Amino acid sequence: MGRFQPFHLGHVYVINEILKEVDEVIIGIGSAQLSHSLENPFTAGERLTMISKSLFEEGTGKPSYIIPINDVNNNSLWVSHVRSLTPPFQRVYSGNPLVKRLFTERGVEVVTPPLYNRKEYSGTEIRKRILSGEEWEHLVPGAVVEIIREVKGEERMRGS
Amino acid sequence: MGRFQPFHLGHVYVINEILKEVDEVIIGIGSAQLSHSLENPFTAGERLTMISKSLFEEGTGKPSYIIPINDVNNNSLWVSHVRSLTPPFQRVYSGNPLVKRLFTERGVEVVTPPLYNRKEYSGTEIRKRILSGEEWEHLVPGAVVEIIREVKGEERMRGS
Amino acid sequence: MGRFQPFHLGHVYVINEILKEVDEVIIGIGSAQLSHSLENPFTAGERLTMISKSLFEEGTGKPSYIIPINDVNNNSLWVSHVRSLTPPFQRVYSGNPLVKRLFTERGVEVVTPPLYNRKEYSGTEIRKRILSGEEWEHLVPGAVVEIIREVKGEERMRGS
Amino acid sequence: MGRFQPFHLGHVYVINEILKEVDEVIIGIGSAQLSHSLENPFTAGERLTMISKSLFEEGTGKPSYIIPINDVNNNSLWVSHVRSLTPPFQRVYSGNPLVKRLFTERGVEVVTPPLYNRKEYSGTEIRKRILSGEEWEHLVPGAVVEIIREVKGEERMRGS
Amino acid sequence: MGRFQPFHLGHVYVINEILKEVDEVIIGIGSAQLSHSLENPFTAGERLTMISKSLFEEGTGKPSYIIPINDVNNNSLWVSHVRSLTPPFQRVYSGNPLVKRLFTERGVEVVTPPLYNRKEYSGTEIRKRILSGEEWEHLVPGAVVEIIREVKGEERMRGS
Amino acid sequence: MGRFQPFHLGHVYVINEILKEVDEVIIGIGSAQLSHSLENPFTAGERLTMISKSLFEEGTGKPSYIIPINDVNNNSLWVSHVRSLTPPFQRVYSGNPLVKRLFTERGVEVVTPPLYNRKEYSGTEIRKRILSGEEWEHLVPGAVVEIIREVKGEERMRGS
Repeated sequence: MGRFQPFHLGHVYVINEILKEVDEVIIGIGSAQLSHSLENPFTAGERLTMISKSLFEEGTGKPSYIIPINDVNNNSLWVSHVRSLTPPFQRVYSGNPLVKRLFTERGVEVVTPPLYNRKEYSGTEIRKRILSGEEWEHLVPGAVVEIIREVKGEERMRGS
Repeated sequence: MGRFQPFHLGHVYVINEILKEVDEVIIGIGSAQLSHSLENPFTAGERLTMISKSLFEEGTGKPSYIIPINDVNNNSLWVSHVRSLTPPFQRVYSGNPLVKRLFTERGVEVVTPPLYNRKEYSGTEIRKRILSGEEWEHLVPGAVVEIIREVKGEERMRGS
Repeated sequence: MGRFQPFHLGHVYVINEILKEVDEVIIGIGSAQLSHSLENPFTAGERLTMISKSLFEEGTGKPSYIIPINDVNNNSLWVSHVRSLTPPFQRVYSGNPLVKRLFTERGVEVVTPPLYNRKEYSGTEIRKRILSGEEWEHLVPGAVVEIIREVKGEERMRGS
Repeated sequence: MGRFQPFHLGHVYVINEILKEVDEVIIGIGSAQLSHSLENPFTAGERLTMISKSLFEEGTGKPSYIIPINDVNNNSLWVSHVRSLTPPFQRVYSGNPLVKRLFTERGVEVVTPPLYNRKEYSGTEIRKRILSGEEWEHLVPGAVVEIIREVKGEERMRGS
Repeated sequence: MGRFQPFHLGHVYVINEILKEVDEVIIGIGSAQLSHSLENPFTAGERLTMISKSLFEEGTGKPSYIIPINDVNNNSLWVSHVRSLTPPFQRVYSGNPLVKRLFTERGVEVVTPPLYNRKEYSGTEIRKRILSGEEWEHLVPGAVVEIIREVKGEERMRGS
Repeated sequence: MGRFQPFHLGHVYVINEILKEVDEVIIGIGSAQLSHSLENPFTAGERLTMISKSLFEEGTGKPSYIIPINDVNNNSLWVSHVRSLTPPFQRVYSGNPLVKRLFTERGVEVVTPPLYNRKEYSGTEIRKRILSGEEWEHLVPGAVVEIIREVKGEERMRGS
């Protein structure tokens, strides 16, 4: 579960670690309805394509579901909302305190995933670099570089 | 694009026909927010699992995206809504007159897919059979039978 | 759980029967956002006042919660929606097949309440009588007659 | 207040009659969010353009406001919704029983406008004619014929 | 009218003062849809239970209505929204400038309630204390301590 | 396209400049659903009346459409939303970076309008002056002064 703005090598690392423990992973794209802002530049469709193409390029070959999840603006409904959109699951991997709390209150096991070089492999850092014109391409899979180029994501973020 | 209530062998046939023409297919699950009614018994997550497991069992092995699409209750926004949730696409396969009209007005090519034994391989027919206790299992992939059993879909529909 | 369009003596009877079994009852007013239509003539506030004043007049004196519940247009979210608006509860009394199914799937015990003279003590019957100018006042508590008079409910329904 | 699907000569007649009594008229386009269905084929923008161009062609020259009004799906909020979108008004012209009831309950004077040849000059009749290929052009202002042609409204309705 | 995050002794004091002036009070729980955040930790159902049980323990015995009020995100509709959910009322007690303004513009009398030791008896102060592990139990009715314990409200807020 | 909180002489200047280039202008009132806050004190109806009366007083006499546009909270849908509410247009005038980006991505020409004395003729500046009791009347058309007086806009903003 993440917003994946954008999908980066830290995410790839985490998913590969998780896939050592489980046979199948569901990747929920949060705040799916948001795009075209500094915090959330990419649409759900763009993010889904990034993840799918990157996992094909760099993943382990194990099956995965990639599912856009709209916000519901009512935290009491959110777990049911996620469950209604996904195959059944027994465990949630998330570092987000609200996500952890909401699933824990419903009795779902929550695991904080390992992070890899959180300082560079972070969406905030990558968005900052895109905005200021610094190099960012080495922090994301090749497929993500291509997609951001195709949708003119740099221009979108810089507003030019 | 369909509601897939439930996913059946007619859908499998159509997707296989389409995959002879294209390399990649996006399967949009319409009215994703609806479930637990006679017309729409299954949740988006259940339908997504049906499609995914069936294509794995019976599909051609070509890649496909399976994406839940909520209704927006505003036909003018629907094409943009679909585009925001999916990878880019050039052609739409649908037999639904409204879907065809909305995409055509935006300049997207729409193709009516071939139908296979529409009388039996139809969601309406299958839902009718489940409701009345007639045999329905031979009309859907094996994975769909399993999922409907697991979620007690027959009891859900019959209200017992 | 009911729509209470309007609250009538059949409801009073059922609530009194339920209060023989339990110490506390939560009365959920469904479709709270609907009003001013033939099917749903009264606002949630009007219905809440009807129930509260009637129970004061005719009830057993045991405590009860009366809580408006908006529709959510997504059956998968509805149980969580109800839970978020109410005190905790262990058992649901409802004759509505969808309500029964949704709670049963979440593991909540559902009991079909006894009905009392369902032919006359029915919202549909009472609305029909109001509309056609037949006598209806003997089918509802005195407090409900007063409230419908105050809000000019008969004129509202007849559109005059 | 009307849905204007489409704007026709009966509407022109009514507006001209009303403008004999008042100096200024506000034309509310109801169900503004609906389009591309048999009941509501045209978007709010298309309907607004129809009305504006027709009144310029055929109107009295008196000023008018033309304002799209989305449905709110909560009749209790609807009058406030209309008031928040329009200049202040003292009188409402409408033949719709629900509209009349909602404004009357808030103390607003409601007048049923005169109708002119309701059998032919009716949206339902005109939509039926467009759908079946009968002549409809003489029932609407010239500007409306042009706009329906431009947006390919006949094809949109016939689904071809 | 308040958010009651959580219900505290200052609220009890104010309600008792108001009940010296009036026979019946309606307590509207604002932002009912919010929960599980630092600003709004408790669900509407939890807050409603807090108020109900506290008034039973500490109240004057006069009747009161406790009604959850969702935000509508449109200030022009808010007064109609509140009226549609509540019994009729003639006077509003609120210290919130927006609430005061909205009711005043609709011609409803608004009274600023007396506040009692606003520094300690404040939701903000109590939430801060819960978060930092300071003592907070003496600032709320006993029933509220119990409910917060039952729903593990401290853990919810601290995210542990 | 603007929020027009309130409509001021800078807006009049810009519209007159634009009307030198084009025959017809559509004025979209953004965030139409917001009102009664410091950032957005006036309703869509009030803003629409301000613009209409001011253009009548000070405008060039060329035709214009004034159309309230609600936010949709989904940037991917916003251009389709605007198009569904307006007559067809070929060029957008806006200085807002998000508006510019969204239209540019859909292939619509966007022009940054000339600004006139941006320091004084700015909504932020005028709202600040109203709030603090400084003179603001010389910065807006006479019609706007009248409307703000009629709706008691100064009291609304100062919360007194």
